[in-house]
Amino acid sequence: MNLALWLIVACGVLSVVYGIVTTRALLAANAGTARMQEISNAVREGAIAYLKRQYTTIAIVGVVILVAAWLLLGIYAAIGFLIGAVLSGAAGFIGMHVSVRANVRVAQAATTSLAGGLDLAFKSGAVTGLLVAGLGLLGVTVYFLVLTTWLGFAATDRVVIDALVALGFGASLISIFARLGGGIFTKGADVGGDMVGKVEAGIPEDDPRNPATIADNVGDNVGDCAGMAADLFETYVVTIVATMVLAAIILPPDLQLIGMVLPLAIGGACVLTSIIGTYFVKLGASGNIMGALYKGVLATGVLSLIALVPIMWLMFGDMDRVIAVGDTVFTPWSLYFCGVAGLVITGLIIWITEYYTGTNRRPVNSIAEASITGHGTNVIQGLAVSLESTALPALVIIAGIIVTYSLAGLFGIGVAVVTMLALAGMIVALDAFGPVTDNAGGIAEMAGLPDEVRKNTDALDAVGNTTKAVTKGYAIGSAGLGALVLFAAYTQDLSYFIATAAEGSFFFGVGEVSFSLADPYVVVGLLFGGLLPFLFGGMSMTAVGRAAQAVVVEVRRQFRENPGIMEGTTKPDYGRAVDMLTKAAIREMIVPSLLPVLSPIVVFVAILLIAGKAAAFAALGAMLLGVIVTGLFVAISMTAGGGAWDNAKKSFEDGFTDSTGQTHYKGSEAHKASVTGDTVGDPYKDTAGPAVNPMIKITNIIALLLLAVLH
Amino acid sequence: MNLALWLIVACGVLSVVYGIVTTRALLAANAGTARMQEISNAVREGAIAYLKRQYTTIAIVGVVILVAAWLLLGIYAAIGFLIGAVLSGAAGFIGMHVSVRANVRVAQAATTSLAGGLDLAFKSGAVTGLLVAGLGLLGVTVYFLVLTTWLGFAATDRVVIDALVALGFGASLISIFARLGGGIFTKGADVGGDMVGKVEAGIPEDDPRNPATIADNVGDNVGDCAGMAADLFETYVVTIVATMVLAAIILPPDLQLIGMVLPLAIGGACVLTSIIGTYFVKLGASGNIMGALYKGVLATGVLSLIALVPIMWLMFGDMDRVIAVGDTVFTPWSLYFCGVAGLVITGLIIWITEYYTGTNRRPVNSIAEASITGHGTNVIQGLAVSLESTALPALVIIAGIIVTYSLAGLFGIGVAVVTMLALAGMIVALDAFGPVTDNAGGIAEMAGLPDEVRKNTDALDAVGNTTKAVTKGYAIGSAGLGALVLFAAYTQDLSYFIATAAEGSFFFGVGEVSFSLADPYVVVGLLFGGLLPFLFGGMSMTAVGRAAQAVVVEVRRQFRENPGIMEGTTKPDYGRAVDMLTKAAIREMIVPSLLPVLSPIVVFVAILLIAGKAAAFAALGAMLLGVIVTGLFVAISMTAGGGAWDNAKKSFEDGFTDSTGQTHYKGSEAHKASVTGDTVGDPYKDTAGPAVNPMIKITNIIALLLLAVLH
Repeated sequence: MNLALWLIVACGVLSVVYGIVTTRALLAANAGTARMQEISNAVREGAIAYLKRQYTTIAIVGVVILVAAWLLLGIYAAIGFLIGAVLSGAAGFIGMHVSVRANVRVAQAATTSLAGGLDLAFKSGAVTGLLVAGLGLLGVTVYFLVLTTWLGFAATDRVVIDALVALGFGASLISIFARLGGGIFTKGADVGGDMVGKVEAGIPEDDPRNPATIADNVGDNVGDCAGMAADLFETYVVTIVATMVLAAIILPPDLQLIGMVLPLAIGGACVLTSIIGTYFVKLGASGNIMGALYKGVLATGVLSLIALVPIMWLMFGDMDRVIAVGDTVFTPWSLYFCGVAGLVITGLIIWITEYYTGTNRRPVNSIAEASITGHGTNVIQGLAVSLESTALPALVIIAGIIVTYSLAGLFGIGVAVVTMLALAGMIVALDAFGPVTDNAGGIAEMAGLPDEVRKNTDALDAVGNTTKAVTKGYAIGSAGLGALVLFAAYTQDLSYFIATAAEGSFFFGVGEVSFSLADPYVVVGLLFGGLLPFLFGGMSMTAVGRAAQAVVVEVRRQFRENPGIMEGTTKPDYGRAVDMLTKAAIREMIVPSLLPVLSPIVVFVAILLIAGKAAAFAALGAMLLGVIVTGLFVAISMTAGGGAWDNAKKSFEDGFTDSTGQTHYKGSEAHKASVTGDTVGDPYKDTAGPAVNPMIKITNIIALLLLAVLH
Repeated sequence: MNLALWLIVACGVLSVVYGIVTTRALLAANAGTARMQEISNAVREGAIAYLKRQYTTIAIVGVVILVAAWLLLGIYAAIGFLIGAVLSGAAGFIGMHVSVRANVRVAQAATTSLAGGLDLAFKSGAVTGLLVAGLGLLGVTVYFLVLTTWLGFAATDRVVIDALVALGFGASLISIFARLGGGIFTKGADVGGDMVGKVEAGIPEDDPRNPATIADNVGDNVGDCAGMAADLFETYVVTIVATMVLAAIILPPDLQLIGMVLPLAIGGACVLTSIIGTYFVKLGASGNIMGALYKGVLATGVLSLIALVPIMWLMFGDMDRVIAVGDTVFTPWSLYFCGVAGLVITGLIIWITEYYTGTNRRPVNSIAEASITGHGTNVIQGLAVSLESTALPALVIIAGIIVTYSLAGLFGIGVAVVTMLALAGMIVALDAFGPVTDNAGGIAEMAGLPDEVRKNTDALDAVGNTTKAVTKGYAIGSAGLGALVLFAAYTQDLSYFIATAAEGSFFFGVGEVSFSLADPYVVVGLLFGGLLPFLFGGMSMTAVGRAAQAVVVEVRRQFRENPGIMEGTTKPDYGRAVDMLTKAAIREMIVPSLLPVLSPIVVFVAILLIAGKAAAFAALGAMLLGVIVTGLFVAISMTAGGGAWDNAKKSFEDGFTDSTGQTHYKGSEAHKASVTGDTVGDPYKDTAGPAVNPMIKITNIIALLLLAVLH
């Protein structure tokens, strides 16, 4: 098994090597004119300054938790926490460093061809994607190797399990802060900038006269690139860890180690298939950008489908070996088909997301059509689409649970989610591609490059909009499918602690904990969990609104006090907006981020005092499912709805023909109404919605750690 | 016990008598000038025409279901269904008939004094309120008497229980159609009318030049009055029935009949206290309208608090009698305190709703402030408030579950919800007051009455806004608190059927059904239930959007083709808008209404085919809780958010002073932005949000009936 682990480490190293090589190739590309570089430098400086301040703030919280983890759970958990936190931060930091250098080169490449721009932008995304998957895989595998080989712990030893869970916690903690802080920054700038620039002053997006425009481009990098990378890193790590914990607890003793290494092996294989897949992304003769990207995804998917067979065979030795877990009997083939189900689910979620957010489809057209009757109907229809868009993904997840559970029980669900997330390298590449093209467009506009260039970058950007929505649907979908795995990790841990409790310990004599829906404390837990995504969503929307209002006030002030800006004779003070947003985002991210960290503890203690230990454990467990049941819908509705609003606005840019045959263009009243919807969708899709995913995970991880601490 | 039942019938009759007497007094009031009566007649005709067509459509569906009920469940269930449906329709129909006659009289009374207008408007609301409670009480009590006395069935006989559940189903079915159809009509008119009138043409609300203005006033009556009355009638009846079913199943044999009559007795007593309470509504020297209404609520609450003691004593004979249900031991005093808890919860929900939707409070002010920076930030902040507003009510409900369950187990929760809903007479009076004052304002505007009159009706209308939000929070709150009662009715029924199944029957050998969260089919059920409110919300928002767009197109056409309308020289064609909306609303209400009716059956059959009976029952049960867990939050967020948007807009009417000390008035850019938010909030608070409540109930009732059918 050690050989397998070293091979997995090799896969992780390979992805890092891929990152280094590709970055070198990227940096060798032409970095454009002096003016372009000047703009790009301003964006880079702003982004790095923000990230430094964000990490400094998180570090303060992190050190407190590190010490607490050490005292409560021991040195190995503390080290695990540190590894998770540092690697999560590193994935975001490095990805963003590449992205802020790629933007100007993509803009330059787009001056000659669309294919050239696509190539560079996608490569930049792929670096981030493969770093997320590679670092995640390396972190878990190397630490697992160190603990079990050098330090000699048994793989299923509580020390190892606690250390892995703590590693997940480190990743989660960074991720919630990064998602939220970055999201508030980017959308504060975007919403604020658009409202004064586009709506009031009537100047285009990214116009250099808008004082918020550099901040907007900084935001793309710190939110959509660094924040997203931290989020997916966390999803990847937590899912692998949860499946490993499950394997350690529920599988028969002779299969525990195999079951723990399996998720890592799937991850390793899919890192390789993702690397190969990146080379399939080439613009065909049709010039279909989305098609080019999907070639990469499809190649990765098909190769993974093939690669999973030898993986299962190598791990289990015999594909027809009968594995019995409780009443469930399955074979490695069953697990293989669970992996296939995970890939199919990924494909379906991509397809559904594209349907709901893509231009020229019913949902987006209905929003564009509603814009013709005004701002109000635009927003109403957008909300309608956002609510409706939750149904199909939920049905896919439901089907996924039924199929994979029927195939191989709980562990089957785990294998499906792990396989789904094993594609993260490729999927994150699609997403990280978005902010780079968005920035490239901004640079082209601000540097006054010819219109054809802007047309190329706009074409790339429009696709980026949908791919961004896809990743979010994918991340939250995996959380929905993984709900039972996370919950099972909790319940199995709990019953193990109760069954093995020594007299006098906390778990002694707790008896059986009922998770029956007929138990009022279970319903209380479900309701409490259910309220978290709503409250969290409300808090983060408020934060963006406040940041955006501050930007509006600042931009209006600059326009008023310095009339030369609008005439194009003086340069606006870009730095002030960046600075202001940095402070606002950091300040606003603290309280909502602590909500999911503290809630499980508060619920547990409150119910413990009122109704005793068994009720408290039941309520805490139910809370974990409650947060997923509402969180899934809140997150999907926000991310898909926001994407649909955005593309409804884009529909007007090439002229939208309504049901009566009239065509409406940019600048029409209908277009203005669609800008309002887009503005509303911004914090929906890029702040509140995506942050629900790490929120769900962190709640689950805290519950697991709470059990470990009480033990 | 028969004497008690006859006394309860007497209470019900008294409420009907109150309705007749009060209506006579109302009709005796001055009906204003000929012009006012002309407008009022147009509104009345439109409303009655709509309601006729709506009931005809429902009747078609109803007859099909009636026949099905007869064939599947027997004659008594079919009659029960008919009683529930007819009474629910009657409550809405009569209430609306009073309301369309009261509107013009309130406008006339407001020409002399605010107090006079308030008095008439509240009396009109009180008629609807007491009819809802009185007819509900009469329907259940009389049918229960007939079945147990004349027909000689034992109170706990399945025939009686099935008949009562079917009665609840009849009420639910009418209610979902009425809420949705009325909601689509009223908000289609309101949104469409506002968007062309206020935003485009810049004419005030209810301006006679707006072709949609009569339709808007018709909508207030068919949606906010008739639809709301049907909804609350259903909530009242279903809650009483569910508690009766629970009593019949879980209480010890000697207490079953008492437990079944107790909810009716509480209802009877509270009808009396509500009637007395209405006489406490008097405008004090301070002229505080809200204060006057709350005097009535407070009086009713305090009197009910007192009346509950003799009720418990009369029912149980001894207040310290020990009642044992399973492991739970309680006394009539415990049940009394559960009732008190129900009243406290009602009070807290009113207080929280007022906080989130009242003018001059943080939430509404934050939306008004956000309007200053534009349409987008207004909507973002409104959504933030709507999401946030769910937290406190959910916590109150959680506390309610814990307290009442600790006091007296499941039956205690039932008593709390029944007591909460026993105040429906008074609470509905507050709500039905809203559309009357809204109409009165419209009539005053259209008839060109002096500004002081409009000021009086506006003052009444602003209060109506908050009271409308209160009722919705109250209805959905009771559903949240009652979740466990409804779920228990299902699980207890199920285990009874399984335990007593004859060989060869459907329930034979099903074994124990696990509702544990660790069961994947339970999670599947939760997720499926969870998606219903989202999908339903999306469908109803789309329906309103479509109706509103049609109105916008029609109004624009009239303005364009007939320029005399805006000059005030020709009258617009009001009838066309009313007609168009009638057809649209009826057409659009069908599919979403059938969603909760068919979903439980589809889920049950699908899981039955995949995984067998036990899994299917588990998934169906979990679905009932899933629909409540997300439905509670979706409904509260929509109704509170919509109310807050509406009052944020109203803040500008008297001038809103922002944080920099600047004051913004009606007609300012900020005010326009606030109108967009109000438009978005309209279908949120008056269509999609409130319809979630009957949707939850109907899902539960269908599940109960499914068990009865399979039996």
